[in-house]
Amino acid sequence: MSPYHHLEDHFARIGNLDDAVGLLHWDMSTIMPRGGAGARAEQMATLRGLRHSLIAAPEVADLLSEAEASNSLDAWQLANLAEMRRGQIHAAAVEGKLIEALSKACAACEMIWREARPAADFKRVLPALTEVLRLGREFGAAKAEKFKCSPYEALLDEWEPGARTIDIDPIFDDLADFLPGFTDQVLEAQAKLPPARLPKGPFPAEKQQALGEKFMARLGFDFERGRLDQSHHPFCGGATDDVRITTRYDEDNFVEGLMAILHETGHALYELGLPRDWQRQPVGRARGMAMHESQSLLIEMQACRTREFMKYAAPLMRKAFGGRGPDWGAANLHRLYTRVQRSFIRTEADEVTYPAHVILRYRLEKAMVEGDLEIAELPEAFNDGLEALLGIRPPDDAKGCLQDIHWYAGAWGYFPTYTLGAIAAAQLFDAAKKADPQILPSIGRGDFAPLLTWLRANIHSKASLQSMPDLLIAATGRALDPETYKAHLKTRYLG
Amino acid sequence: MSPYHHLEDHFARIGNLDDAVGLLHWDMSTIMPRGGAGARAEQMATLRGLRHSLIAAPEVADLLSEAEASNSLDAWQLANLAEMRRGQIHAAAVEGKLIEALSKACAACEMIWREARPAADFKRVLPALTEVLRLGREFGAAKAEKFKCSPYEALLDEWEPGARTIDIDPIFDDLADFLPGFTDQVLEAQAKLPPARLPKGPFPAEKQQALGEKFMARLGFDFERGRLDQSHHPFCGGATDDVRITTRYDEDNFVEGLMAILHETGHALYELGLPRDWQRQPVGRARGMAMHESQSLLIEMQACRTREFMKYAAPLMRKAFGGRGPDWGAANLHRLYTRVQRSFIRTEADEVTYPAHVILRYRLEKAMVEGDLEIAELPEAFNDGLEALLGIRPPDDAKGCLQDIHWYAGAWGYFPTYTLGAIAAAQLFDAAKKADPQILPSIGRGDFAPLLTWLRANIHSKASLQSMPDLLIAATGRALDPETYKAHLKTRYLG
Repeated sequence: MSPYHHLEDHFARIGNLDDAVGLLHWDMSTIMPRGGAGARAEQMATLRGLRHSLIAAPEVADLLSEAEASNSLDAWQLANLAEMRRGQIHAAAVEGKLIEALSKACAACEMIWREARPAADFKRVLPALTEVLRLGREFGAAKAEKFKCSPYEALLDEWEPGARTIDIDPIFDDLADFLPGFTDQVLEAQAKLPPARLPKGPFPAEKQQALGEKFMARLGFDFERGRLDQSHHPFCGGATDDVRITTRYDEDNFVEGLMAILHETGHALYELGLPRDWQRQPVGRARGMAMHESQSLLIEMQACRTREFMKYAAPLMRKAFGGRGPDWGAANLHRLYTRVQRSFIRTEADEVTYPAHVILRYRLEKAMVEGDLEIAELPEAFNDGLEALLGIRPPDDAKGCLQDIHWYAGAWGYFPTYTLGAIAAAQLFDAAKKADPQILPSIGRGDFAPLLTWLRANIHSKASLQSMPDLLIAATGRALDPETYKAHLKTRYLG
Repeated sequence: MSPYHHLEDHFARIGNLDDAVGLLHWDMSTIMPRGGAGARAEQMATLRGLRHSLIAAPEVADLLSEAEASNSLDAWQLANLAEMRRGQIHAAAVEGKLIEALSKACAACEMIWREARPAADFKRVLPALTEVLRLGREFGAAKAEKFKCSPYEALLDEWEPGARTIDIDPIFDDLADFLPGFTDQVLEAQAKLPPARLPKGPFPAEKQQALGEKFMARLGFDFERGRLDQSHHPFCGGATDDVRITTRYDEDNFVEGLMAILHETGHALYELGLPRDWQRQPVGRARGMAMHESQSLLIEMQACRTREFMKYAAPLMRKAFGGRGPDWGAANLHRLYTRVQRSFIRTEADEVTYPAHVILRYRLEKAMVEGDLEIAELPEAFNDGLEALLGIRPPDDAKGCLQDIHWYAGAWGYFPTYTLGAIAAAQLFDAAKKADPQILPSIGRGDFAPLLTWLRANIHSKASLQSMPDLLIAATGRALDPETYKAHLKTRYLG
């Protein structure tokens, strides 16, 4: 067997371990009994430690060097090899014991955070978060050396390969300039419209679920290779050929739970559309979290908050809940689904105010990792920052720096991918509609096949064959560019 | 760190891998979407391969030898070390690649069996089963050398450490002599009683589940560290501090689904009662499958098919389903739960005819592993054997040698533990009642605390500190002895 094929075998096993971790994580977030948390943290730490030892083994470095010297690899194999090398650099930069220590520290911090957040008690989680940041900075520093980038960029690279702050900063600075004034304009314009009215419930969870599954099926979700369940925070997880999305149901308000299903279905379609020939190989994985978020936002924000989709969906919603009256009309539901409000909670924010939440977190986490912000000062810095970017100040830390799990779970460098994904989503949907003018009218009939066909051909089937910028250029003619995103916002919200 | 403490760390990681496999297996058997089966088989093969490489590593053998030379270990540590050594011998006897090959062969065979069984088509699964047996025999032969026993005993040893056919054969031969005549007597006696009548349904699954959970709580099941779900075949699985039992609901007949819950709760109480100080260590595991089955049968057969339990449970059953009339009386329900019938399906068999099913399978699998029975002749041998032992002949292989998953999943040597467990259950319940005369009257009030206290002290808390015979002797004054079991059957059925 050639060195390259040895590596394929080896990385397939690593992919199997990733799958196992994905399933244990899904289970932990959905159905695990509370008392299992401690043992689950141990299980995941062991699997992550084994994954690390498999990828950081000296034989792997040798095989990579040998394979890299080969002339007989095709484009997919070369890209696979490059992804293997990237993974190996990430792994070899740190010791296996550190991986297990970080895994356990994050699990412990997350558990404390689950109590500190409802109590709005940042001090309670401060020691655990300090440890998580300490280990994160240690990781960042060790990897920065290998990748020749900053420690923050080294952490970012795990979520968004190749991303650098020199590219992100100007995009986020531009949006931070544009959005405050734009938000004022939108709020002014919406004040002149009829108010968006929430239809009267109750909306039983099982009816919300049945409706969600109907939409998932229309979108092309394959229930033979996936599931829909409930969790505290919606997410898309699972494993190869077993893609699991979650939502949460509020029986007084179906709006968010249903839209979460559409959002997570976007993620799932990406996973389910990855090339079967490259399953469990590094090149067969999704390109990065920005592209992943572009797929969920393309479905949720670009496709499903359109007047076209609402025209199709409104009668189904009304029928599902036995609703009556004008609140169930497509016009009211569209206003409801495009309502803009300044609010404290990122996950509940609308499309217009969302980037302010992300830009703030990006700047803060960068400062924390680079040592420019003391963790003890985080609550104040968070509140000051939100006030500056969005004009509102959180009344407590539950509505401030305690609201998101990311830092407490050690996910430094994840936040920017939300807004990078939103920008990419606008750019991709724009290109798709231009490539196939039937896409939007079809959505108005509940037919997502033309859109899915374009996404499969241009994004899903390409997995990690190219870099994120190259994928975007191939699909849309240019690299990431906030202008299409801004144009989309202007069209939708200022008409 | 001492060699022994190094080993403790190492085996805790192996325990974490076992937990992960346990959870993936639970998921596969309950909620996994069908399309995930192929990838799941890969995941489990990888985890089992890694487990093998962790335990069979040469450093482990060295550490074991060093630790075994130490004088400073206490009784638990010595027993732990002995269990580590047993596991290491099992692992080191075969190569890691073979473990993965067996894991995949079993997964493949199981998938084919799932189709072959309803079609009653043994030929369809014959090639896959041949491969599973071939690998099983290879395993058995390799391990037999190390354990100085027969290949079949080496496979048996994985489920029931230390069990040897020289001990099992006379017990099973004795039962095989006793039971046919006894069964005739019981059937004759029952023919004179009023017929057992099944109360009229329907029995909605959610009501069955609510009732089952009520009984589980009375039995002492900790829902903070476990769950109840549904699967095709009831089982107890999961992981440390996360013990999951399953049942299946027939909406026309609540009898079996409810009793399966009680049975699996018996398994779960054992797992949940294992000593917390020895979690994830080999000595902290359940003693073996015979002891495990004794715990489930002690709850199901010994405790919950008594007149005392039925007196307590009948009003709760009636209330749960809104039932009326004499069919819901304790006397009728007791007759229903102790009805004896000659039938083809082992899992549906009653307490009196069950051993015939097990003894047959034990004899057949021993013959197959030892090379005395060709697989192609299995269907005929199965039918001949059941006719000889039970007096009925399966009309097809679905009701014959295709009915159980065990062989098709590679679990050679598991079957005898069912009847060894039934014998141990009678012996343990008898000893418990003598030690605490309040146990049976308390069960009549739905209070299982006295029974659980005795089980915790005499069985659960001892985990694998002693051998199965030594545990039994300590708890009951003697090693496994079918006389108490036969006496129990006579009292209950010929009263």
